Amino acid sequence: MTDTASNSFPHYANQDLPRPSYLIGLDFGTESARAILIRPGSPEVLASAVHPYLHGVIQGRLAGQTLPLAFALQDADDYLLAAEDLIRRVAAHLPPGAEVAGLGLAFTSSSPLPTTGQGTPLSRQFPNHPHAYVKLWKHRAEAKYAQPFQDLQDLEFYGGSSSPEWLPSKALEFAGESPELWEQAARFIEAGDWLVWQLSGQEIRSTTQAGYKAHYRHGQINEQVIRSLGERFGGSVLGVPGTSAGRLSAEWQIRTGLSNRPQVAVSAIDAHAASLGLGLIRPGELTAILGTSACYLLSSDTEQAVPGISGVVDGGIVPALFGYEAGQAGFGDILTWFVRTYPAFPGCSEGESFEHYNTQAASLRPGEHGLLALDWFNGCRTPLDRGDLSGLLLGYSTSTSPTDIYRALLESLCFGARRVLETFDRSGVSVNRVVLTGGLSEKHVLLVQLLCDVLGRPLEVALGEAASARGAAIHAAIAGQVCATFEEAASQLSDTRTRNVTPDLRSLPVYERLYASYLQLSDLMAGSTVMCDVQALASEVRALQPIKTHVGVEQ
Amino acid sequence: MTDTASNSFPHYANQDLPRPSYLIGLDFGTESARAILIRPGSPEVLASAVHPYLHGVIQGRLAGQTLPLAFALQDADDYLLAAEDLIRRVAAHLPPGAEVAGLGLAFTSSSPLPTTGQGTPLSRQFPNHPHAYVKLWKHRAEAKYAQPFQDLQDLEFYGGSSSPEWLPSKALEFAGESPELWEQAARFIEAGDWLVWQLSGQEIRSTTQAGYKAHYRHGQINEQVIRSLGERFGGSVLGVPGTSAGRLSAEWQIRTGLSNRPQVAVSAIDAHAASLGLGLIRPGELTAILGTSACYLLSSDTEQAVPGISGVVDGGIVPALFGYEAGQAGFGDILTWFVRTYPAFPGCSEGESFEHYNTQAASLRPGEHGLLALDWFNGCRTPLDRGDLSGLLLGYSTSTSPTDIYRALLESLCFGARRVLETFDRSGVSVNRVVLTGGLSEKHVLLVQLLCDVLGRPLEVALGEAASARGAAIHAAIAGQVCATFEEAASQLSDTRTRNVTPDLRSLPVYERLYASYLQLSDLMAGSTVMCDVQALASEVRALQPIKTHVGVEQ
Repeated sequence: MTDTASNSFPHYANQDLPRPSYLIGLDFGTESARAILIRPGSPEVLASAVHPYLHGVIQGRLAGQTLPLAFALQDADDYLLAAEDLIRRVAAHLPPGAEVAGLGLAFTSSSPLPTTGQGTPLSRQFPNHPHAYVKLWKHRAEAKYAQPFQDLQDLEFYGGSSSPEWLPSKALEFAGESPELWEQAARFIEAGDWLVWQLSGQEIRSTTQAGYKAHYRHGQINEQVIRSLGERFGGSVLGVPGTSAGRLSAEWQIRTGLSNRPQVAVSAIDAHAASLGLGLIRPGELTAILGTSACYLLSSDTEQAVPGISGVVDGGIVPALFGYEAGQAGFGDILTWFVRTYPAFPGCSEGESFEHYNTQAASLRPGEHGLLALDWFNGCRTPLDRGDLSGLLLGYSTSTSPTDIYRALLESLCFGARRVLETFDRSGVSVNRVVLTGGLSEKHVLLVQLLCDVLGRPLEVALGEAASARGAAIHAAIAGQVCATFEEAASQLSDTRTRNVTPDLRSLPVYERLYASYLQLSDLMAGSTVMCDVQALASEVRALQPIKTHVGVEQ
Repeated sequence: MTDTASNSFPHYANQDLPRPSYLIGLDFGTESARAILIRPGSPEVLASAVHPYLHGVIQGRLAGQTLPLAFALQDADDYLLAAEDLIRRVAAHLPPGAEVAGLGLAFTSSSPLPTTGQGTPLSRQFPNHPHAYVKLWKHRAEAKYAQPFQDLQDLEFYGGSSSPEWLPSKALEFAGESPELWEQAARFIEAGDWLVWQLSGQEIRSTTQAGYKAHYRHGQINEQVIRSLGERFGGSVLGVPGTSAGRLSAEWQIRTGLSNRPQVAVSAIDAHAASLGLGLIRPGELTAILGTSACYLLSSDTEQAVPGISGVVDGGIVPALFGYEAGQAGFGDILTWFVRTYPAFPGCSEGESFEHYNTQAASLRPGEHGLLALDWFNGCRTPLDRGDLSGLLLGYSTSTSPTDIYRALLESLCFGARRVLETFDRSGVSVNRVVLTGGLSEKHVLLVQLLCDVLGRPLEVALGEAASARGAAIHAAIAGQVCATFEEAASQLSDTRTRNVTPDLRSLPVYERLYASYLQLSDLMAGSTVMCDVQALASEVRALQPIKTHVGVEQ
């Protein structure tokens, strides 16, 4: 929450670039939002601020009700609080009277919410109703709600299926589970697009959001998706990346205390904005964003059908290239689950647990623990695109320690990552360079090394922070007409510094074998109904009235 | 460790039975040994005592070396300390000058050790050498050492295979892994038989131990087993249950302070002795001993080949009936592993953890947690008889709680138990009555209820304690010529009191489905090489010099 004003960047003061005014990049992540203040012509971040959401991620319970396992909600009003606070805080670092040319927003996706025709979130009117809230990216609709979209045209460019994590399935789930409330929803809109609407007063949806998360292709939303959403897609007014939705509204100028009304860019997806922020916009450059989940962004000059990717969108990262998105549905959240479930010692913080387990796990020899895990705690995105799969650990003995489990989980994340890269390569989409970013790439030295060992190839770790917010600022530069092209804006504003990591050759033979076992186990479980059966039973039981196990004794 | 002298039993003082002298039953379990003092004619326990072994179970490390995962050792000298201490303590309750007619020993099995020709354990001479120690019942030899016994005659009466947990495989492992030390071993003998030898001076092995654990059938040890062991089987002097090996030696009379030298019965297997102690000796009566592992004893008048049983032995429990032994290799030790791995709160005892988790887990609805576990933490005994399988949990999400995991583990134990019972029924060996005994049946109300719900049939829980020690006392009664037959001894000395448990009908449909998934998952994993591959890799890695994962960073 501490605001920072950085002086660490090499100075660009002597360069001959115009510096007409400032740019603000906002990045709305899973747990918090961040803002940076930046000036055209230099990648130096002049100020940054972080704002954790008031209600965080709403899981497990809401207003006294038990939520289904797959539910992950947010309160849209938390975004407004964050936006106001963050813009005010970074703007406090502006010289007196300085103007902000553009404001860009990167956002998690697909995280849609229902609103009235005026954009008021339904959660204000129906605070006890789960479906009235933002359904966060990792909220999974039941498989049946994704079913109607499994015969869409061009599905091969969405990895072969339409994900229950995307907007159309989330919309059908809403309509199916709560038809009365669905009637009250005039709009069902990505939270990023909604926030642009709130800030600018203009309801303009991003073609990137729609391209990756709502089957928008070749300039139009799929008809079947339109039929499912009806009017709720807002008349299909879409804007390509870098378009301005309009100026910041007068109301928001007052709320934020800015001296002018900057252009507000149509929303970007946080992951895609990160590639831009790191300058990874050439064909074959893969950005691996290792955070709560893992997201892989890859630009290419060829459009291929790749199994289980989230999507390939023309101009999805930068114009004129095909932008691929792939991912692992669970990543850092699996490790956070671990340290919450197994605190290292009484009363310790999560950070202390991580420190403890990282030290312990680093002293294990590869393969020594005898465990193998599947990283499917939130389902499997690439290459299987199945939300009905679940996490698995095998190899347990009564000698298994928490450290063994931790290391097996770390390794499973790496195996999952390797599988994503191999899926690209096998589909004819080249990966020439791998750059890691996101919280885990910065903080988790052991994970990065294991990933390098499991992949068996050199990696780079991006040294710049706040890549998505920086990417949002690049969008702001285009929308604010400070730069003419994304390439120009990226060359001025992106932070391309990295450090190199090389694989430990001694580990490679062990990880080759373990990875082969990981693939074998994946095939086995994906080919069986057992995971889905157990999950389906759990869903049914949770929907019933409580039956406590009877432990009475008869003599 | 507190000695108890009980008065709680109904008095038999007016009965017309002879009471010539006393009997001592000793039961050597996994963590501790127990003794009871009893008088012919009455089931009343006059005194009992418990002695935890000085070195417990030796796992993980021995004398600064890392032990292979599958190693579980004991120090034979701990048994001598226990025997001396226990006999002294219960004998202290004898009236002045009273004599002990017989002394019986029940022992874990197969738990063999190497000795010199005089019976001195090799561990005294080679204290740093793992193979010089007792290999406890749950110590598993590598699969390759069981391989030579997989084509023996009559293997269908040992569940179709010879277990790597049995004496012949443990012998081959020793010979293969440490041929020089094997040369020093004049004998390789079950610890129960060895202790009888120490107490009586006579090396007489039990036909029951040999029948279940060394392929002794129709009055002879299998020739191939004899070839593997050479002289180390001690010239095959065997005694049927109830035989006296001889009187307690003069040396041991002094060590224990007894006023006479009682007859020492040939050793019994602890589980089989328990059936006897509970009076469960009629056809169709199943004794389920729920302790560290689960052991199922069943008498029948028919001899059938049953997949994955440990064995069926003519007269294995009582003469004239076929005694079946089946089991789950891991049971209570899986729950102990759980509470050690996930203490309920800082600094709590295992007992407090159990109390906490039992309360929490009882409030979950059947199936609600979405998890499914395989109870193979020590491999699978019945029906698969495979030590190369391992524990598994699937269904993990980032909402999974330790209580969820605990309950799934409890349920997996119950599913494994159901599978054992169904295996008997399908093989034409009837189970008419199920009586639970062992530590968990007494203490774990929730587990007993879940077992009843998963089995979907009424159960009884034995109320008597120390059933194995009581069974050993029954052996002592025969060897000491106090009773003529096992039936007569059991009718006088067994404790047949039970309480009834009835299934919760509301849980049955859920557990039917979960059990079907358990079977499906079992088949999947047993049919795949993935568990063995990961375990084989771990064994190889552990045998190598340490390689720490390199976490250095290059700029």
